[in-house]
Amino acid sequence: MLIPSRFSTPSSGPPRVVIVGAGFGGMQVAQSLAHSGAEVLLVDRNNYNTFVPLLYQVAASQIEPESIAYPLRTVVRRTALTRFLMADVKKIDFEHQVVETVNSVLPYDYLVLATGSQTQYLGVPGAADHAFPLRTLDQSVALRNHILQRFEQAEQEPVQTRRQQLLTFVIVGGGPTGVEMAGTLTELQRSLRHDYPNLDWREMQIVLVQSGNNLLTNLPARLGHYTTRKLRKLGVKVHFQTRVNRITEHSVEFSDGSLLPAGTVVWAAGLEAALPTAETVPETAAKRKLKVQSTLQLIDRENVYAIGDLAYGEQNGKPLTGVAPEALQQGVAVARNIRRQLRGQAPQPFRYLNKGRLAIIGGYAGVGKIGPILLTGFLPWLMWLSVHLVYLPGFRNRLMVLLNWLHGYGHGDRPIRLILTPKAAFSRPSSHTRTCTS
Amino acid sequence: MLIPSRFSTPSSGPPRVVIVGAGFGGMQVAQSLAHSGAEVLLVDRNNYNTFVPLLYQVAASQIEPESIAYPLRTVVRRTALTRFLMADVKKIDFEHQVVETVNSVLPYDYLVLATGSQTQYLGVPGAADHAFPLRTLDQSVALRNHILQRFEQAEQEPVQTRRQQLLTFVIVGGGPTGVEMAGTLTELQRSLRHDYPNLDWREMQIVLVQSGNNLLTNLPARLGHYTTRKLRKLGVKVHFQTRVNRITEHSVEFSDGSLLPAGTVVWAAGLEAALPTAETVPETAAKRKLKVQSTLQLIDRENVYAIGDLAYGEQNGKPLTGVAPEALQQGVAVARNIRRQLRGQAPQPFRYLNKGRLAIIGGYAGVGKIGPILLTGFLPWLMWLSVHLVYLPGFRNRLMVLLNWLHGYGHGDRPIRLILTPKAAFSRPSSHTRTCTS
Repeated sequence: MLIPSRFSTPSSGPPRVVIVGAGFGGMQVAQSLAHSGAEVLLVDRNNYNTFVPLLYQVAASQIEPESIAYPLRTVVRRTALTRFLMADVKKIDFEHQVVETVNSVLPYDYLVLATGSQTQYLGVPGAADHAFPLRTLDQSVALRNHILQRFEQAEQEPVQTRRQQLLTFVIVGGGPTGVEMAGTLTELQRSLRHDYPNLDWREMQIVLVQSGNNLLTNLPARLGHYTTRKLRKLGVKVHFQTRVNRITEHSVEFSDGSLLPAGTVVWAAGLEAALPTAETVPETAAKRKLKVQSTLQLIDRENVYAIGDLAYGEQNGKPLTGVAPEALQQGVAVARNIRRQLRGQAPQPFRYLNKGRLAIIGGYAGVGKIGPILLTGFLPWLMWLSVHLVYLPGFRNRLMVLLNWLHGYGHGDRPIRLILTPKAAFSRPSSHTRTCTS
Repeated sequence: MLIPSRFSTPSSGPPRVVIVGAGFGGMQVAQSLAHSGAEVLLVDRNNYNTFVPLLYQVAASQIEPESIAYPLRTVVRRTALTRFLMADVKKIDFEHQVVETVNSVLPYDYLVLATGSQTQYLGVPGAADHAFPLRTLDQSVALRNHILQRFEQAEQEPVQTRRQQLLTFVIVGGGPTGVEMAGTLTELQRSLRHDYPNLDWREMQIVLVQSGNNLLTNLPARLGHYTTRKLRKLGVKVHFQTRVNRITEHSVEFSDGSLLPAGTVVWAAGLEAALPTAETVPETAAKRKLKVQSTLQLIDRENVYAIGDLAYGEQNGKPLTGVAPEALQQGVAVARNIRRQLRGQAPQPFRYLNKGRLAIIGGYAGVGKIGPILLTGFLPWLMWLSVHLVYLPGFRNRLMVLLNWLHGYGHGDRPIRLILTPKAAFSRPSSHTRTCTS
């Protein structure tokens, strides 16, 4: 039941490149293929690119969701042969070289798969229903609403144990997202003291749960130890060698059998590739990632590339870790390889240039590794913010985020403490709706 | 089944003023009662104040919803005796002097009712289900999402009549909101030309429907005539003496029996007071507004005030029209009268000082009446923006809106063209959710 589409006619003109997914990698391919002579079609289910590294700041009322979203049509309108299609991709048919969306069929000459990753709940019962993941803009706004709601509820709650439950925040996973989230919650707590003068803040606790015995395991162990000390100083309870057995609406059950009443659980633990459905499933590696050649082409598919979190790549015998710079550099490399193929040349292997790694903790502290040098404290914190400001797409967004940071880190204030409620919000009201009211 | 609350103990200390509703009027009362010696409790269902005059700009992708929302706890934290309670008010019991929320009972010595207005669909079948009102922040974001979605759908739609339907926007009501919305849609259309190079813009139409034979009927007729000419010049089809008989998902049926296929209907027609439920219903006037004495006290209730859209007031024999400056001035007056009562003095009559009226059209034009002087064109347009920037609460919000205006009106761009979809957004996902994907 496919409706004919303006995009479904086979291209009789220039060769057509279809890019599925407009994250770091996909958007980069589209930009790098401008003026290549090829017709480029960028497909995403959203009409914006999400700047994933700052999602945790949206969840913590630091910045507006709009300032880390970049309209994809702004990207494509710069070049005549590049177009955008907002659609859910249903299936990929490698044999017939078509991408099927809900209501159209898109033939391609070259295909770039950049559909990223998705949350994987590791089989923990209740996690999918009661824990908040932090991978999309809507999820970060939902988490913001939920966190603020918990403070409002706690202020009205006369029973102490219930109040403690409402004010207990559990973060599952000690990678960058878990660390950022724990750190920013301690900052949020400080800024909310003026808002809730009647709350006893000793009733609030932030718990970070990690299965191993260090944080930020993709960085040298020393940086993980520093991060642990810093978070504990900020008031976070860091639990090592702990797994989550079950999550309910009101509590978290740990692997040692203990039960912690908690009002909010943030899931920052598991990820897997967001593999598109295909007629013939390509070879996958761990976490359902697609195996690729050194050129980023799929095994046995000369005209199909996979990049970013979707692709399994190795360098010097070690797997790539799925950070944004890898996806960006792969996007440039894929565009270069497609240009080479268009000229009849062979694609070249991709090599990731590691410029260093940074992680932000909170309380004006971060960690980093630049070449052989390890950094801790204020300098890597400032570097983290600067680098992300530079990589954030769009001048306007950069300015908005900068102003929010100057205000927020300067005054210790969180100006976007807004509960744009899920119920009323974003659904069309079916009857009368009140304004500015009780 | 009322849970005891921290707020439900009768005040043994200072007299307690409860303010229900934190719009223009309610928030002003809270601010003006600071340091009055009274305990002030501001109650609203949202944790933010909404700057209603700029909602249409949120709907038109001009400004972020966050920049016209102001956290109410920022208002109350400035004074020790002022507190905020986020709650839905269920009932008011004037006899026992208590306000009942979902989970608490709030005794009061003085009560200020400021619950504003709500959309009234005037009995038009289908209006509540298919038309978009524009009275709350969530509604304006829902309308933004819907409008942008229509353009995405139109670009993918191969059938011309379906495309025309998707690109037909009907606005019901020729007051300020209807005029603003029609004007801003013409600006949005121009800024979207670059985004959708394949659309034939002659297929798009913006229709403004008015039951009478002039626009902006609260202003002198000449200004309404100018507004009509200006909107028509911008490309809006203005239909006078036309009512809407029925609204369906795909069309609007007019009073002359004609049927217009339309993808979007904005309801800017009817309003009525958002009356709280009460044991003994006070006397009401037209549009369910509460009758008040000249002092803004309810008839027969010395310690209950009503202001803003909720109250029916007259001046020089003519009813007040329900604009923001009236609510603000009434807020100041009520605070003054409660202070007088606290000192044992009699409340004084309220007099509205009309500093003038402005309305914005679009295309750098507006209209206004300052004293006896009528203004049209660029000057009242600039004055409208300036006045609203000054009245917008919060320095940060003012700066954000100003930057957006400089960018938007300067470049003709609408940077916040983001479809933060209702389905996925703001609900907790129940299973895997993809990121940056197809």
